[in-house]
Amino acid sequence: MTTQVNILLTGNELMNGDVIDTNSVMFAQQLNDIGLTIRKKVTIADDLLLLQAEIVQLSQTAEVLIINGGLGPTIDDLTSQALAQACGVDLHLNPDAHLHLQKWAKRRNAKLNKPNLKQAYLPLGCEIVANETGSAVGFSIKLGQCLIICTPGVPSELTHMLKDEIIPNLQQLFPIPTKHSLVRFQTFGLGESTLQALVNDNLPDWPNEIEIGFRAAMPVLEIKLSAQCQKGKAILPQWQNKLRDLLGDHILSTGKTNHITIADYLVPLLMKSQQRITLAESCTGGLIASQITAIPGASAVFEAGFVTYSNDMKSKMIDVPAATLINHGAVSKETVLAMAKGALAKSNADYVIAVSGIAGPDGGTKDKPVGSVWIAWGNQQALHAKYYCIPVARQYFQQIVAARSLDLVRRKLINSQESPHYDQVSYNKFIK
Amino acid sequence: MTTQVNILLTGNELMNGDVIDTNSVMFAQQLNDIGLTIRKKVTIADDLLLLQAEIVQLSQTAEVLIINGGLGPTIDDLTSQALAQACGVDLHLNPDAHLHLQKWAKRRNAKLNKPNLKQAYLPLGCEIVANETGSAVGFSIKLGQCLIICTPGVPSELTHMLKDEIIPNLQQLFPIPTKHSLVRFQTFGLGESTLQALVNDNLPDWPNEIEIGFRAAMPVLEIKLSAQCQKGKAILPQWQNKLRDLLGDHILSTGKTNHITIADYLVPLLMKSQQRITLAESCTGGLIASQITAIPGASAVFEAGFVTYSNDMKSKMIDVPAATLINHGAVSKETVLAMAKGALAKSNADYVIAVSGIAGPDGGTKDKPVGSVWIAWGNQQALHAKYYCIPVARQYFQQIVAARSLDLVRRKLINSQESPHYDQVSYNKFIK
Repeated sequence: MTTQVNILLTGNELMNGDVIDTNSVMFAQQLNDIGLTIRKKVTIADDLLLLQAEIVQLSQTAEVLIINGGLGPTIDDLTSQALAQACGVDLHLNPDAHLHLQKWAKRRNAKLNKPNLKQAYLPLGCEIVANETGSAVGFSIKLGQCLIICTPGVPSELTHMLKDEIIPNLQQLFPIPTKHSLVRFQTFGLGESTLQALVNDNLPDWPNEIEIGFRAAMPVLEIKLSAQCQKGKAILPQWQNKLRDLLGDHILSTGKTNHITIADYLVPLLMKSQQRITLAESCTGGLIASQITAIPGASAVFEAGFVTYSNDMKSKMIDVPAATLINHGAVSKETVLAMAKGALAKSNADYVIAVSGIAGPDGGTKDKPVGSVWIAWGNQQALHAKYYCIPVARQYFQQIVAARSLDLVRRKLINSQESPHYDQVSYNKFIK
Repeated sequence: MTTQVNILLTGNELMNGDVIDTNSVMFAQQLNDIGLTIRKKVTIADDLLLLQAEIVQLSQTAEVLIINGGLGPTIDDLTSQALAQACGVDLHLNPDAHLHLQKWAKRRNAKLNKPNLKQAYLPLGCEIVANETGSAVGFSIKLGQCLIICTPGVPSELTHMLKDEIIPNLQQLFPIPTKHSLVRFQTFGLGESTLQALVNDNLPDWPNEIEIGFRAAMPVLEIKLSAQCQKGKAILPQWQNKLRDLLGDHILSTGKTNHITIADYLVPLLMKSQQRITLAESCTGGLIASQITAIPGASAVFEAGFVTYSNDMKSKMIDVPAATLINHGAVSKETVLAMAKGALAKSNADYVIAVSGIAGPDGGTKDKPVGSVWIAWGNQQALHAKYYCIPVARQYFQQIVAARSLDLVRRKLINSQESPHYDQVSYNKFIK
């Protein structure tokens, strides 16, 4: 029997449809990873009586109760008060929480106001859980046989607290009886159903003892192989190799990562080979540059990006000949190749990406519909260009163009001889 | 007292983190719109005993219980069975549901198989709810005083069923006694605790009849005022005005919006005044440009952005004098002003933002610690520059710098005479 966890989410914004609850997914994935099972999840508004009653009830049916939300400084944040009442203890000024708040305020050169200070009033007898990023500490207390842990509702704060504090602690408190074996691949360029079909077609005798799971975290798709029994564990390495051979360079990395963009995989490759990259962006409008510069140490591989949104600026900033624009249009092979050449010349970088397309919702034509994009990429020795048509909403279009562009350079850097799957699925009838 | 609704969501995929629950948002928004309140939401896995127990419990605390999921053809779809057991009735082949399935199969030129037929076995005495799109009908039944409605988990099927069947029915069964009044403000630049403190200090006699709620959706913070009773509704306009006066130009807009960045508020202002903006970005590395170009129609206000990450490229791309960089450093008032002037000259735009800072984690010095940033903004007539120190993790730093930069231009465009709150909280001891 695995350890059971109940989850209690609180917040008016969760009840009136103002926000989508993504914290639940975080809890589920991370608790499952350490072998804990979520038994029940309850969501209620910021209502003291309801909160108190739920805490009592949920603490009686699981070994762990995690409460999420209601730790903020405002009067509708009621978790501490409800928990104190459920446990039959008073709220008091917790010295550890107070110290945390003082440090937090000092870092921002601000004074603690009264609403802030409310966050240090916690149930007597609780232990605090560090919060590296926000003002509200987490805290834990026992009620009967149940360990209750209170966590902040702000997703970024929760992420840190789970990773650094709560998960390692729970892992120690509730070790998994028999550890299951786990292998993960991060992939890009194959959809979930395509992956499933590829496995069905090419590895039809996939063993029951190895479970395949998928976790989509656009643009990366994680594949998880897990084995519980002895036989499964024994054959896992050989099937892991078969799957790796099948997926080829669609695999970005093996093992667990928190990488969220393809730039996370490309920048280390550039660093390792001491190569710099530059960008000439039209339809992605700076998105590719921002994904590269989101990574610490990006200055080693990136000096300049050119966001050339208008035709005029394509010529002025990176010397795209006016004739090219007039004869072929801004969304053309000739233009992106000229953009790539110009950006390389102006920046002295080794690698380049140039993109020009129609992000929509307006601006499409019969020949070049919304979703059309030309991508040029390469280096001084060899520049390539490809057309894709990705007819999705503007922001997804920009994200996909950024991901594919970065992936094309990644493939060049690892000398991939494969054709990525997205080359097959995109229809090319509009290529001129 | 408004009508209370409980929601019960079922599905293993909701418990293991494989999907994000978006149906809840659909329920909440549509039920709120017709004046119903969601009291509690419970999510559990596909477990017969747990389901049955929850149905009984949730039916005792609300006038309506909506069950979502578990209507499918597979063995882990258990809603009908659990509901029948909870109501103490048998499952039988429901003729209406059977007819629906036969029509559904005929449309697809398919034969009903045994798993399909399972979907027509419903609790005795229930009424079916039409499903225009899928194979599973919904159904409703009374348990004690509670109306229980079972709905499909597939979002597209749920959408239709809610809109066409359930919402109109509930509206008729539970007419709104008196509609509550609601006012929303989108704000930027004030934290939740500061807002609460501002209200406490300046509007100490805030009436109980008007509820204040906050929703943080970084970087925007939404404030929601709601009044249920007659008195509250009568005085809402005057307190809304008082709050508006208090918050001044920290208010981005009034009413409900889905805007997620400050660019969403700035771009329409630029469009309206037919002004164009350009950017010279160092530490934000293209993020500001990408936020502007994420907005449809951005080409009307944006032609070019300069991502000048290295010193050398600041000089080459936008003519920052080498002497300025040598004498004052890249993170200095002189440099950002030169970047702003250069970008304006090269792009012929009307407005400009230039940023240079130390995003970290490395690169800080004693005089210019990680988190330091100079922002220049303005137009040909007047350029301004300000120093902030925002010592937070790299990606948050970049997001906050982008938001403040855009907000500073927004304030200039609306001729704001105020000093934004973030000018007070940031310490300026490092200003040279």
